[in-house]
Amino acid sequence: MKYYPYETFKNDTNKLIQEVKPFEPDTLLAIARGGLTLAHAMAEGLDIREVQSLRTELYDKTLKREGLSLFGACDFTQNAKVLVVDDISDSGETLRFVMGYLQESFPSVTFKTVTLFYKPTSIYEPDFWVHKTDEWIDFFWERDFR
Amino acid sequence: MKYYPYETFKNDTNKLIQEVKPFEPDTLLAIARGGLTLAHAMAEGLDIREVQSLRTELYDKTLKREGLSLFGACDFTQNAKVLVVDDISDSGETLRFVMGYLQESFPSVTFKTVTLFYKPTSIYEPDFWVHKTDEWIDFFWERDFR
Repeated sequence: MKYYPYETFKNDTNKLIQEVKPFEPDTLLAIARGGLTLAHAMAEGLDIREVQSLRTELYDKTLKREGLSLFGACDFTQNAKVLVVDDISDSGETLRFVMGYLQESFPSVTFKTVTLFYKPTSIYEPDFWVHKTDEWIDFFWERDFR
Repeated sequence: MKYYPYETFKNDTNKLIQEVKPFEPDTLLAIARGGLTLAHAMAEGLDIREVQSLRTELYDKTLKREGLSLFGACDFTQNAKVLVVDDISDSGETLRFVMGYLQESFPSVTFKTVTLFYKPTSIYEPDFWVHKTDEWIDFFWERDFR
């Protein structure tokens, strides 16, 4: 288990902001909870006012592939390019599921994904990511407030 | 202008988590963008999975009192106690407007508000806050990513 401190997050996020800039997203979608702090920082850095959020939940942990539900409403009918933000693509199930839903619901919108971490075993590779690792990450927002 | 660093945020947020605990909220509502990082940290500390978000915008800066619009959908029909999270109650217009909307839309839900800062000139006092100040605050999420 590796602690991921704010100072490293700050450097990584500034790198991601530069990488994402050419895509010119008009909105960010934060996957709650993990993606909220990153989405906030990227929205400030990219000067994007619109941040929406969605939440996924496993309704049966024994049926992982079919077991995801979406909570929260989002609306991208007024948008052209949306950046989907999460902390990590771990199994990859969340982002694959969310992207399937978004592309079907808003076919005229271009969606891209960004995460800080990406596991080699993930079934989904985000468009932008900083670290590829097998380690269990202990994010500062998980450790520092308990 | 006073820089508000992550380490101070960490201490303040942990204080707020202890103060808010007896209210036992089942959901957090983050006011985007300013409230996103605080809502994420408080959700982790309070062990609350559900975080929704809303955004306000001035549609005419010359008509401040009437000039706020809400963006984003939220739904609290399944909830009993919701904590509304923002970084600062500055003029207080945002929180007064949001609270008016929420109480009218979800009359059976109890809403309480939390911010890090509260200005003496604000027309709205949050239920929970850490610092009362006249200073202009330069939050780390605004400064560190530009």
